Amino acid sequence: MSLTIIAMICGVIAVLYGVITGRQVLSASPGNEKMQEIAGAIQEGAQAYLGRQYRTIAIVGVVVALLVFVFLDMPRGGVPVTSIGFVIGAVLSGVTGYVGMNISVRANVRTAQAASEGLQQGLTVAFRAGAVTGMLVAGLALLAIAGFYYVLTGPMALDLMQTDQKREIIDGLVGLAFGASLISIFARLGGGIFTKAADVGADLVGKVEAGIPEDDPRNPATIADNVGDNVGDCAGMAADLFETYVVTVGATMVLTALLVTGLTAQGLSGLMALPLLVGGVCIITSIIGTYMVRLGSSNNIMGALYKGFITTAVLSIPAIYFASDAALGGMDNSYTVGDTTFTGMSLFWSMMVGLVVTGLIIWITEYYTGTNYRPVRSIAKASETGHGTNVIQGLAISLEATALPTLVIVVGIIVTYQLAGLIGIAFAATSMLALAGMVVALDAYGPVTDNAGGIAEMAELDQSVRDKTDALDAVGNTTKAVTKGYAIGSAGLAALVLFSAYTADLNAFFPELDVSFSLENPYVIVGLLLGALLPYLFGAMGMTAVGRAAGDVVIDVRDQFAKDKGIMAGTSRPDYARTVDLVTKAAIKEMIIPSLLPVLAPIVVYFVITWVAGQANGFAALGALLLGVIISGIFVALSMTAGGGAWDNAKKYIEDGNHGGKGSEAHKAAVTGDTVGDPYKDTAGPAVNPMIKITNIVALLLLAALAAG
Amino acid sequence: MSLTIIAMICGVIAVLYGVITGRQVLSASPGNEKMQEIAGAIQEGAQAYLGRQYRTIAIVGVVVALLVFVFLDMPRGGVPVTSIGFVIGAVLSGVTGYVGMNISVRANVRTAQAASEGLQQGLTVAFRAGAVTGMLVAGLALLAIAGFYYVLTGPMALDLMQTDQKREIIDGLVGLAFGASLISIFARLGGGIFTKAADVGADLVGKVEAGIPEDDPRNPATIADNVGDNVGDCAGMAADLFETYVVTVGATMVLTALLVTGLTAQGLSGLMALPLLVGGVCIITSIIGTYMVRLGSSNNIMGALYKGFITTAVLSIPAIYFASDAALGGMDNSYTVGDTTFTGMSLFWSMMVGLVVTGLIIWITEYYTGTNYRPVRSIAKASETGHGTNVIQGLAISLEATALPTLVIVVGIIVTYQLAGLIGIAFAATSMLALAGMVVALDAYGPVTDNAGGIAEMAELDQSVRDKTDALDAVGNTTKAVTKGYAIGSAGLAALVLFSAYTADLNAFFPELDVSFSLENPYVIVGLLLGALLPYLFGAMGMTAVGRAAGDVVIDVRDQFAKDKGIMAGTSRPDYARTVDLVTKAAIKEMIIPSLLPVLAPIVVYFVITWVAGQANGFAALGALLLGVIISGIFVALSMTAGGGAWDNAKKYIEDGNHGGKGSEAHKAAVTGDTVGDPYKDTAGPAVNPMIKITNIVALLLLAALAAG
Repeated sequence: MSLTIIAMICGVIAVLYGVITGRQVLSASPGNEKMQEIAGAIQEGAQAYLGRQYRTIAIVGVVVALLVFVFLDMPRGGVPVTSIGFVIGAVLSGVTGYVGMNISVRANVRTAQAASEGLQQGLTVAFRAGAVTGMLVAGLALLAIAGFYYVLTGPMALDLMQTDQKREIIDGLVGLAFGASLISIFARLGGGIFTKAADVGADLVGKVEAGIPEDDPRNPATIADNVGDNVGDCAGMAADLFETYVVTVGATMVLTALLVTGLTAQGLSGLMALPLLVGGVCIITSIIGTYMVRLGSSNNIMGALYKGFITTAVLSIPAIYFASDAALGGMDNSYTVGDTTFTGMSLFWSMMVGLVVTGLIIWITEYYTGTNYRPVRSIAKASETGHGTNVIQGLAISLEATALPTLVIVVGIIVTYQLAGLIGIAFAATSMLALAGMVVALDAYGPVTDNAGGIAEMAELDQSVRDKTDALDAVGNTTKAVTKGYAIGSAGLAALVLFSAYTADLNAFFPELDVSFSLENPYVIVGLLLGALLPYLFGAMGMTAVGRAAGDVVIDVRDQFAKDKGIMAGTSRPDYARTVDLVTKAAIKEMIIPSLLPVLAPIVVYFVITWVAGQANGFAALGALLLGVIISGIFVALSMTAGGGAWDNAKKYIEDGNHGGKGSEAHKAAVTGDTVGDPYKDTAGPAVNPMIKITNIVALLLLAALAAG
Repeated sequence: MSLTIIAMICGVIAVLYGVITGRQVLSASPGNEKMQEIAGAIQEGAQAYLGRQYRTIAIVGVVVALLVFVFLDMPRGGVPVTSIGFVIGAVLSGVTGYVGMNISVRANVRTAQAASEGLQQGLTVAFRAGAVTGMLVAGLALLAIAGFYYVLTGPMALDLMQTDQKREIIDGLVGLAFGASLISIFARLGGGIFTKAADVGADLVGKVEAGIPEDDPRNPATIADNVGDNVGDCAGMAADLFETYVVTVGATMVLTALLVTGLTAQGLSGLMALPLLVGGVCIITSIIGTYMVRLGSSNNIMGALYKGFITTAVLSIPAIYFASDAALGGMDNSYTVGDTTFTGMSLFWSMMVGLVVTGLIIWITEYYTGTNYRPVRSIAKASETGHGTNVIQGLAISLEATALPTLVIVVGIIVTYQLAGLIGIAFAATSMLALAGMVVALDAYGPVTDNAGGIAEMAELDQSVRDKTDALDAVGNTTKAVTKGYAIGSAGLAALVLFSAYTADLNAFFPELDVSFSLENPYVIVGLLLGALLPYLFGAMGMTAVGRAAGDVVIDVRDQFAKDKGIMAGTSRPDYARTVDLVTKAAIKEMIIPSLLPVLAPIVVYFVITWVAGQANGFAALGALLLGVIISGIFVALSMTAGGGAWDNAKKYIEDGNHGGKGSEAHKAAVTGDTVGDPYKDTAGPAVNPMIKITNIVALLLLAALAAG
């Protein structure tokens, strides 16, 4: 049986796991009528938002698909593999988000009900829901890429040993990655704007102005806030990680096809299938890991999640070894890329580095965002002296939090490059992403518990339920930050892989051009500076969008309070749907321009610099732009996501009774920090990851279009 | 008469201007006895701080001077030019800061007195004081470099046409730059920590806890706060700009010596002297400009300052033309660097680009930090909905504010490179710095008015005086941001020059090594990432230091209030000196480690990467680190300095009666934003500029030491 088919079977197993576990979640009690009513409103809002978001994205998607077809597929003729890949990537990215959201909006109320029975019960339902999303992300991503690759090399019979047919395979994989990335940046940003506009708006007008608690049913924005958790933290995150998976594994395969020379047909197809097989076996180890998540006697929630992750990671070591042995036909075969020679064993060790990097990033993120360590506690302590010092300390922590992950990534680059050159870096990134099922499961349980807490509050369940959902949610803040750090860390490696693909393509398409990527070429510096600017500009747009949309929410809620005095008195029901609708429109309007920034920037930079200084410098500046984005983006994203998580948990730490507890001056200051951290960690920061990929993929497509045109 | 001597004469004229104008300032009335008493306390505190700071720096300086002597001068033998240069640069940098502080602490009380007569009178005294500092910075910097160069080429008779003697000249100039940079990073950071620790601490315990206004004499931290303006914003800033001037002009001369080939002795010495002569003539145009600063009928303060700047800039155009014509012996001579050929006219146009870049950066900074434009007003408006939205909008503006300056710098790089290659970039940076006298004058008037406001408050002068000093101070916030944007913008150009010097040195010292600076070399990426990390880590350390030291202030003041109830009652005098002493110790302790970061990082990176991957990759990673620092540092510095200025002025805009005015909820939120912006704009942000230079210079010295050893 072909290795690609085995990988596809693993993908199917992941989907089956999703279906079965999803049924288990749905079979749990959905609580009393009031809870169901609230959950229904959240479901309705989330459906309405995602529906409208996807309709908008579909318009952009169709236009881009046509452009891809006209500029890339038409000149080549034959089967339009790039646009077909694009459509598959785009549709499956959308499906992943949609299904994730759907399970999430049904699990929330069941988690609230289960939490009333006990912490373990609440954790079980919430984590299962997260695991469904996690396995669907990994499973669908693997199915997309393995299935498409299977069709290209099987039924379509494209031959890797023929240069022009190999090029078709590469074009198809790049198209697939582009589709996934384009949808995911819209989903990440649109969802991110929705969730934080609703959250910040609801807090401002509720907690600050009206003096009512979070998730109070009298607040017309409260349903929108809970909808946001599902469309942003769940659907947006799922689309993002789907993208990361597809791009990373795809880029590894593309780079292998471009660089590795001197292999037999069988040797090359084995090496090409290895990333797919590694993805496949790690789905199995991830599924096993999910069954290990359970509280010990100490009720340590993070510990329970660690058990699952560590099980998966440890089991993945032999799994990856045997997968490599099978795909490569022994570990001692040697491979050549340029001047570098490496063996299968070197690739195995590179993948082990990927696992270690993943583990270290999780551990570092926990340190910076968990309530048990210095960073969060220093922010909590700084809250005692006021809003200003809380924010200063939070910003200091967010800057500091970039250091260790960067060092880990740098060491990872050096070690894997020493082991197996650029291909080593690519396989390290692949093994990082192979654990995506488990990592996403850890993350996706967060928004479920967040929502469960909201429902418990609105349905006026006992305070003990809220305490349990709060405890689960505090860990959720950490795991949410973990996934973002993991995604951006893998992007750091993947960007190098994509840049190598860019230079390899450049050599293939324009062999006569003498392009200097040396730092001594000023156009390289220009490209690096412009690339470094993109995450800043993008972040500014995202933050401003949240501020503006949150302002709209405040005005809407004030208007509802003013027109119907019964709302605050508790005698009449606020118009939740009106607020949801308003945030929906605002988020969709605001997501368009920033999302197009990384699509257009590479094209504009290439043409302007080519016009000024010739095509060779145009390509040099464009290549440098790709690395400028990652070099600045990694810091922007890490600082925003870690800082935001730390602020949120500093507030939770104070609410646990430290530094004066709830209602104290320190608590008010911590609420400010939490508000500041919201768009940092959930809007601007995480969207940097797909932004980096899009810039790179657009550059690859631009090269191909220029070569074809 | 030699051109170098003409430049030195211009430097002397600047110093004379300083002496004469300083006397004019001192001849103004120092106000009543109470004002003098307060001013005396500020003077005493500033003297005490600077004294202790310099004693500490002196220890580091002596150690470093010895290291420079042992590793660089001893192996070469002969006159120890590098360590002599180091000592001159270090001492004069210190002198500049010291004199600037001294005039500033005497002008503050005189400005307060003059403001009681009228806005024009207040502006005149304050601006004159600023002009003294400005001309001293430019004059002493020019004297340092021109004088040292004169001694090297005149009395010491080193010959630019002899490779080994040219190397001695280069080594001397690099040593000079290193001395200036090392002192300035300590002064910028130490002063920055002092001023913001005192400011934030005083605000927290005074405004927030005790509910007394800013600069209330009952607050024991209030003198420390006013001392901070003088040691941070004045002395620290002056040392920083002295460093920027010396490094930029020095790097231009070094690059000229390294790269330009095929000239006669006369041609080369003319080209080498051109930066000095341009610096000289622009001192004269700057002095003329200072006499044009006066209020029109509209009382527009920024307009008055613009008049001065525009006069200087316009007069500098012909001045630079004639200087070039004189130094180059005609504008049509052609010069060759590698494959590039350019004429004197190309250099002239490159310098014009420098002037345009300076003008645009001033204009952009005014847009982002002035109270008349969208950015500041958007922050003020966001304050209405609370602390959180104020900070979110401020962060969004700070991210956005990086875009236009980056584009201006990028266009500047492209145009000047097209005109005259790397030498064109270098001369653009030189012409930017040639206006330093005027730019620093605009900046240094800010802390004087800030102090004047403090003295007016403490001496209980009429509210109308405070209104005038506040109006002057609001513009001061913008001009302070301008200087920082200008310094970091010029650093963007200077860093390219320094990197070129690094690669040229590398080729000269290690001709056999094949060092690849291509982005395709992973060690280049590693270097870029590690370089990009430095400003983040440095920023984190600076912000944390301010938070920690401000906490100490709060504890001290609380203690004073508790032990002597008479302080709050107004019957007994707080122990101001105790607080000043405490902040002094804290600032000096906190400045050491972050300041050593950019000194040690290049050395560690070189040795580690050399150990892992060989010397060629060690040099590649080190070179990339130099560019990584600027590529990330420019964004960190621009966002922090612009954002901080915008926050400060958003508060002032509200205090002018908008969005509810003083005491409103919006005002409280704006105070939070201002507090957050404080360490951003006055501690972490501006210190990035000297940090970038030090990293580069240490790399040059390391190269020389390795070559010698």
